[in-house]
Amino acid sequence: MDLRHLLIDWRRAGRAGLMLTALLGAAATSAQGASRESLAHAEVLRNRALTGTSAMAIVTSLTTEVGPRLAGSEAEARARMWALQTLTAKGFAGVRSEPFEMDAWQRHDEGAEVIAPFPQPLAATALGGSVPTPDAGLLGKVAVFETLENLKRAPAGSLTGRIVYVGHAMQRAQDGSSYGYFNDARTAGPSIAASKGAAGYFIRSVGTDSHRFPHTGSLRYREGIPRIPAMALSNPDADQIERIATDNQDVTVRMWVDSSELPASQSGNVIAEITGREVPEEIVVIGAHLDSWDLGTGAIDDGAGVGITMAALELMKEAGLAPRRTIRLVLWGAEEVGLLGAQAYREQHEASLAQHVIGSESDFGGGRVWKLTADSQTEEGDALFLEIAHLLAPIGIAPGSDDQPGGGPDLYPLIAAGVPTLRLHQDGRDYFDLHHTADDTVDKLDAAALDQNVAAFAVFAWLVADSDVTFRAAVE
Amino acid sequence: MDLRHLLIDWRRAGRAGLMLTALLGAAATSAQGASRESLAHAEVLRNRALTGTSAMAIVTSLTTEVGPRLAGSEAEARARMWALQTLTAKGFAGVRSEPFEMDAWQRHDEGAEVIAPFPQPLAATALGGSVPTPDAGLLGKVAVFETLENLKRAPAGSLTGRIVYVGHAMQRAQDGSSYGYFNDARTAGPSIAASKGAAGYFIRSVGTDSHRFPHTGSLRYREGIPRIPAMALSNPDADQIERIATDNQDVTVRMWVDSSELPASQSGNVIAEITGREVPEEIVVIGAHLDSWDLGTGAIDDGAGVGITMAALELMKEAGLAPRRTIRLVLWGAEEVGLLGAQAYREQHEASLAQHVIGSESDFGGGRVWKLTADSQTEEGDALFLEIAHLLAPIGIAPGSDDQPGGGPDLYPLIAAGVPTLRLHQDGRDYFDLHHTADDTVDKLDAAALDQNVAAFAVFAWLVADSDVTFRAAVE
Repeated sequence: MDLRHLLIDWRRAGRAGLMLTALLGAAATSAQGASRESLAHAEVLRNRALTGTSAMAIVTSLTTEVGPRLAGSEAEARARMWALQTLTAKGFAGVRSEPFEMDAWQRHDEGAEVIAPFPQPLAATALGGSVPTPDAGLLGKVAVFETLENLKRAPAGSLTGRIVYVGHAMQRAQDGSSYGYFNDARTAGPSIAASKGAAGYFIRSVGTDSHRFPHTGSLRYREGIPRIPAMALSNPDADQIERIATDNQDVTVRMWVDSSELPASQSGNVIAEITGREVPEEIVVIGAHLDSWDLGTGAIDDGAGVGITMAALELMKEAGLAPRRTIRLVLWGAEEVGLLGAQAYREQHEASLAQHVIGSESDFGGGRVWKLTADSQTEEGDALFLEIAHLLAPIGIAPGSDDQPGGGPDLYPLIAAGVPTLRLHQDGRDYFDLHHTADDTVDKLDAAALDQNVAAFAVFAWLVADSDVTFRAAVE
Repeated sequence: MDLRHLLIDWRRAGRAGLMLTALLGAAATSAQGASRESLAHAEVLRNRALTGTSAMAIVTSLTTEVGPRLAGSEAEARARMWALQTLTAKGFAGVRSEPFEMDAWQRHDEGAEVIAPFPQPLAATALGGSVPTPDAGLLGKVAVFETLENLKRAPAGSLTGRIVYVGHAMQRAQDGSSYGYFNDARTAGPSIAASKGAAGYFIRSVGTDSHRFPHTGSLRYREGIPRIPAMALSNPDADQIERIATDNQDVTVRMWVDSSELPASQSGNVIAEITGREVPEEIVVIGAHLDSWDLGTGAIDDGAGVGITMAALELMKEAGLAPRRTIRLVLWGAEEVGLLGAQAYREQHEASLAQHVIGSESDFGGGRVWKLTADSQTEEGDALFLEIAHLLAPIGIAPGSDDQPGGGPDLYPLIAAGVPTLRLHQDGRDYFDLHHTADDTVDKLDAAALDQNVAAFAVFAWLVADSDVTFRAAVE
């Protein structure tokens, strides 16, 4: 029986409840890949997590004792020290930092204002990687585009000397899917504007809140195109620009950014493990990224993930459980500026990637998990996936389908190397209210929701690591 | 029958629904003070307001075209220009500015950070009126007090060279009453700390949100005590200080404030009227304050009040109604820094204060009105009050009692001169989320809620102005 096909049929049928019960019932009696003892341990881990874990205390400690930890900065180095100390104190095996070098971007000062017709300050922040403006700032008339698509359609040379503004109307999405679409305005927009002659670039923040917090995040300059300074406006300030520009009224603004690049800066990934009792060389990866943007204290992005996955590892350790395979916690460095830690990890672990059984990262805030997907390529993998789903259904998590392999951004390099992933989809309706803003602080997190995430990570990691199931198709 | 006593009995009985019906029924049939025609007009005004008024457009215009308008600043002068132009365009009578001079405080730069044990930036803003720090900032160990009362109990000289922090745990209150209590930490706190030797002063923001917006607001230095720089921390940053200071851990912080005073600056009140058809010298005052703090665009404090009261006047004008008495809209200047416009108004109108029939200011944001109180001293005033209540009950407003005469802060000088007030109590549960922060912007307002306020102001102002009812006890 190909459970994968059954599952797909069930998804298509859209009658989740009934079909799921039938499927899970079948899986539970066959119990492929997981022993009854292993399943019993998983259930204990899940229930224990729901009574309270260390996740919130971990995020609180990280955000209080380190706070903002921009990739490549001295603060990120302090975060690695914090992680090494914390992981060592918790008694994990193989605690270590795996350093790498990177070019670090630094924000020194920034601001923006409307000069005419209605002078007033604007809440704005430089996009990560933005070049600086001249010391006196950059003054110019605004060219307003409702969407990135409209900017793309602007004639060549039509924006000479202008400061481009690109808006949009991003709505909330539980799965965060609108981010991928609207985020192009942030990443690709600056070079598109510059290619048409623009001198500066503003976006409406890629965020769903209506507070005066601009959302930063990396831009990507294209080779061979002038690099222009680029900033995000908070949503209320973007509204302001759009209101003033109504009826084609000229809007003159000034932006100033003082930033710099520091080549050959240090970053690193921090690792801790529970060593496998039978096949320690086979590895189940869980983790989160340790770096954060500089504006907030990185509680939801990604202190929450650090807390969830570290607490999951701790839960298993405190239960005195040693799985067949090794469970490896990876706290990646420099995620925000281009998955640099994940790429370094892939390079440094090239020789053992074939023994990476599966991976999952927690990097979507502190919301509850509502869906579970995996890109298993085997029948036994499908069967174990359904075992995991069976154990997570009581805490509100349903198995589902995913358009593309996932599991968290830091797994992309591993996915490219053939490592399968499992994804615990969190409810992200509020995530882009806070994402990459000064308001990303620990008070926004809910301890019970973190604990539900811990339960899911512990059940998944334990069951896979304690099995001999493979999720990869055999090489022909 | 003394309606006042009945009303008080009813309040005490706590059986609002039943008693109110009986009372209002009696009042409606006797209809003291308001003609049937006048009541009919009031009902039309109320219903028309609910279909949509200009209130939101007015606030949007003010906050977009002027934005922040700190007392005594060039921006506040632009706000007066905006008001004069807007009021003239709407065709009101007696549109004018009544200037006065004041010492204007200016904020130039500010910031704060934890230096040790966990270096990281703090979201902080100078309190209005704060003296500057030295250019390099002020560095010191923090002395943490849970409440202002605890600070008061600190021994003399015990805080020499320290930077005091005062916390609290202000909760939401529909009537805003917790503000008055906790606000002492902001106004009186700096001099109390300085009197015991402190070099600098932080408060947990007097606000109910958990965002990284510090709440500014005026402090009041006491004569003869050294003036020390004083700032507010956002609630998440106050949490941070309290967490770090747990177990008596030393916390070293740096604060920097660059501010100055500009003596003999210009401010002013802006006035517009609907002239009374029979006794134009008798005046019903409605209004709001035109100045705002400099961090936000002053939408809820007090653009909303400007929009509500101006729209109420416009509603009556557009209906072609001329009341017996004059209805005067006053947009006060320099409220935030000590009711300077209100004091100037009292001085400039001393001769006509006896003919000020009643006053009401809208200065508590954009929430719906839920309660109506007045400090009538006459039976006919009580009767008209109940007529007003009768007409406002269908839009959710119940008559109630108030501990002390009110009607809005800019009426305090008039109250002291014997002018009665009526107060339309707004739901302020969310008001202190935004109050005096950068986040006080127009996107937070709800047009339908503003319209409900307009309905209440129009009904009240019309009925009183179209009557010959007096609310003042006859002078013996």
